[in-house]
Parts: sequence; C-alpha cells; structure tokens
Amino acid sequence: MTSEKQIRTIGWIGTGVMGASMAAHLLDAGYSLRLYTRTRARAEPLLERGATWAESPAEAADGTDATIAIVGYPSDVRETFLGDRGVLRAGRPPELAIDMTTSEPSLAVEIAAALKPRGIGSIDAPVSGGDIGARNAALSIMVGGAAGDVERAMPILRTLGTTIRHQGGPGAGQHTKMVNQILIATTMIGVCEGLIYAQRARLDPLKVIESVSTGAAGSWSISNLGPRMVARDFEPGFYVEHFIKDLGIALEEAGRMGLDLPGLQLGYSLYEAVREAGHDRKGTQALLLALEELTLAERS
Amino acid sequence: MTSEKQIRTIGWIGTGVMGASMAAHLLDAGYSLRLYTRTRARAEPLLERGATWAESPAEAADGTDATIAIVGYPSDVRETFLGDRGVLRAGRPPELAIDMTTSEPSLAVEIAAALKPRGIGSIDAPVSGGDIGARNAALSIMVGGAAGDVERAMPILRTLGTTIRHQGGPGAGQHTKMVNQILIATTMIGVCEGLIYAQRARLDPLKVIESVSTGAAGSWSISNLGPRMVARDFEPGFYVEHFIKDLGIALEEAGRMGLDLPGLQLGYSLYEAVREAGHDRKGTQALLLALEELTLAERS
Repeated sequence: MTSEKQIRTIGWIGTGVMGASMAAHLLDAGYSLRLYTRTRARAEPLLERGATWAESPAEAADGTDATIAIVGYPSDVRETFLGDRGVLRAGRPPELAIDMTTSEPSLAVEIAAALKPRGIGSIDAPVSGGDIGARNAALSIMVGGAAGDVERAMPILRTLGTTIRHQGGPGAGQHTKMVNQILIATTMIGVCEGLIYAQRARLDPLKVIESVSTGAAGSWSISNLGPRMVARDFEPGFYVEHFIKDLGIALEEAGRMGLDLPGLQLGYSLYEAVREAGHDRKGTQALLLALEELTLAERS
Repeated sequence: MTSEKQIRTIGWIGTGVMGASMAAHLLDAGYSLRLYTRTRARAEPLLERGATWAESPAEAADGTDATIAIVGYPSDVRETFLGDRGVLRAGRPPELAIDMTTSEPSLAVEIAAALKPRGIGSIDAPVSGGDIGARNAALSIMVGGAAGDVERAMPILRTLGTTIRHQGGPGAGQHTKMVNQILIATTMIGVCEGLIYAQRARLDPLKVIESVSTGAAGSWSISNLGPRMVARDFEPGFYVEHFIKDLGIALEEAGRMGLDLPGLQLGYSLYEAVREAGHDRKGTQALLLALEELTLAERS
C-alpha cells in the first residue's frame, strides 16, 4: 500500500450530532474538508474553522482523496452515494468512499459494486460509542470492505476511534453494527425492568445501581443510562427514531437469514411503543417510559 | 456499635462452589469456623484447615457469634434457619444470622421476625460475582436488615466482597439481587442472539466481540461468557437450574407487586427451554443452545 498516495483532502457529508464532532477531529488532524450537509446552518462552525462548502455530495466528493458520509436513513445513504448528485457522479471521483452511517448490509454491497467500475474503493464503517464517543474520538468502528481499501482508510479511522476492527468484505461492518444494536436493545429492556422493579420494591435505585453494576449484571447501559433514567433525564444521546431504524434493519436482515430472534423482536416492539407515545426525539433511555406505561396498563 | 463484642467464631452452613471459597477466606482471616453441610465430603478440605464439624445447622450455630448460610433453594433456607434442627433451635443462639443464599425477599422478612425474639439479629446478604468473585473475595454483596445488625456484619462481609451496599430493611438485599438477575437474564438473551446473528452473517464472532464489547453494547456477559459460547464451553460458572430458581422468585415477586416484566418473562421461558433440553447442570451461557434450537425449529 506504500505506493498509494496519502489521503489529504476529504469530502464530508452529514453534520449531525456524531458527524459534526467527527469532522472537527479531521480538521484538527490537518485534513482539508469539503463539506456538504442538508441544513447548511449546521455546517457553519466547521466552515468557520476552514472547511469549504459544497452544494451536493457529488461536489463534496469532487477531486478529494476520500469521501465520508454519516447521514440518517438507508434512503439518505443511497441518495448520497448513488443519487443524481451523489458521490458516484463526482467529476473527479475520490479513490475511496466510506459510509459511517448505520445502514443496510445489502446496500453496502450494492454501493461497493456500483462504485468499483469508476475506480472508487468503498468501505462500510458504522460506529458505536454515541455522542460522547464521537466527541472524545473514542468510537468503536466496525469495518467492512476489501483489505486494500480498509488499509488506506486506517489513518482516517484512527483519528476518529480507538477500537477499529476489519470484520470482512462489504457489508460486514454493517452486520457487526447490527449485533451491537441487538445487544443494546435487550440490555436496555433489563435496565428498565430492573429499575421499575427496584422502585416498586421501595429500594433506592441509585444504590441498587451501585450494587449491580460492578458484577455479572454490569453493562454500559446500566452504568451510563441507568442514572439518567433515575434522574428522569431523557435527553438524547442517541435518538429513539434512529435506534428504531437500526432495529428494523436488524430484524429484516435476521429474517432474510432465516433467524427468529425473540429478544430483538421484543426490543423492536417496545421501542415502537416509545415512538407511538411521542418520544421518538428522546434518547434511547426513554424506553423506561414505555415500560412504565405498560405496567400501568396492566394494573388499570 | 463499639460496645458489641467482636465476631470471632462463625457457624457456616453450605459448602457449594461459592460457599467453599467464601468459608476459606474467613479461615484465612483468622475466624474460627463451625461447619455444617449436607454432604460432609464437600466440607473435608475446610475441616483439614481447622474448621470443626457440626451435625446440624443448630449445632453449627450453637455458641457462635454469627452464623452464615449459603445453601440452594428457599426451602433449604427455611429448613436451615427455622427447621427442627435449624439456627433458631441452637442451644446458645448466635447474636447474628446472615443468609447469603439468593432467596425470597418475603422469607428474609419472615426469618428476621422469627429470630428476633430469641435475640438473634438477622440480615439477608445475597451476592453477585459467581465462582470467580467468590474465589477472589471480589463479590458484590447486597444487604438487607437493621442498621445495627448490618454494621456488626461488615467486618465479615468485607472479607468476602469488594462492593458492599446496605439496601434497606430485611428483604432489601434479596430484592436488589432480583434486579441483578433481571439484568443478567435480558442481557444474556442479547448476547446469544447477537452471536447467532454473527455466525449466520458469516462474521468471525470473536472479532465481533472485540468490536462490540468496548462501546455502548458492552456488558460483563458479552466480555466473559461470549468467548466461552464461541468456544462451545458450557461448563458451569453459575448453574442453569439455580438461575431458573432466581428468575422464578423474581417473576413471583414482580407479580406480587403488580408488575408485568416482558423481558424477565422471556428470559424465564427461554431458560425453561434450556432446562427442558436437559442442560440444567450447565452454565447460564447454555442459553445459546436453546436459542439455536429455537432458530432451527423455525427453519424446519
């Protein structure tokens, strides 16, 4: 890979909570950024720090060494890479396209196949670690793609995360992220039910968290989101609506592979109840609200 | 509490995987142990190290400063403390009785009430951390009881664990342990489903564990039991049959409090399937076997 030229200019698409922090780290590391995002106002802080503005994904990608997207839904990913004004249509295509959105494994495969004839290497690299991980450049990055492309992307990825694993060919990063979301969904059910039980048993929930978080019941969720639930703080670290999107993809992929996963199914239906109760723009810890309502419904 | 005499002699009842390690720590710390367990052979290593043998819980408790039990089922706990040859019938009753079995909160309340008229203080102090935690004296101990009794027990508890929290009156330790088991049950569902998904998606499950265990999906279960499942190692750290006992208590208590907990219910029914498949003497990670069979059933 030493014959490849070093990546210096990056097209960056998407400046949500995660994307804005991540793009800032690349600026700090000395990369030139060409930026596109749907709502220009959200790009301003990065433009003030030296990023240049582009009017479309194609223009953001034009003439860059690598182009990275972290957007919302699979439909946005499709538009960003394969749409009329997408990365594929860049006048001078980038050598490398990286999708860090959590999206469909099959779409990652499709994008890799579509970009290859234009000489664009493609990797899927969704992340875990939330707003805090993005801010601290401490993300876990799950990578799918051809080995050469992954190797070329490594300096960029190391600027954004601490745990970076190449999981296999195109789509393998997305599949790994699905495993990640399955784990979170089921763990969150237990965290909510445990706290509801604790409250009903008239225990002090924060003291209970101290007892249970250090042993075999310990998890990131109980340690980090448990106290927020106790404080009735449902501000988003990670939006319910995005989590439902992820769980929907996981369910669809599991079904496609002939898998019936009852825990994932339960998690999905409970988060649907959270959305139906109007909490889709709250954080994933708002699952507590749905489970509390379920309990009340049972009692009335 | 400085007027209370220091605890020097301890009655110890139960030398299972956990109990044997814990009793050994007390011997190491210089306590005199008077030992009873159902199968005398299992007590031999401790007797060789200086513990003395008793023919019943009553005899083990007789003339000791404190008597501790860690046995199997709530029926064993009842027999140990309230039975014809139980702690309550000791000729010279101990000042303090400590139940470290995971058992029913309501039974802890009943025992405390029954022992009090004989001048025996009583606390419930179930533990989390498994065989490894017991061996390393690194248990989390969840304590219920009157403040004075808990304070008297602290030097003993500190010999056995690192996280010791007084959660409330009699039964509060058991309630906290129920929260602990609810967390484990739901987390384990996700660990199994995640690994099944990973395998079906043709990922390397150990590499997936590396990616998912450090971020928001992280848990003790995925880090410690995930690799054992991948290695098809179902040796017990904690027995399926004991875990089902615990989840049954949790379900009953939740029902009594008017709570419907779907994650706990799912965990219980899946672990029932593990038992029905004949894996009750395997470790809790054998949940994977039940979920794999469920998947196969769906496909056939």
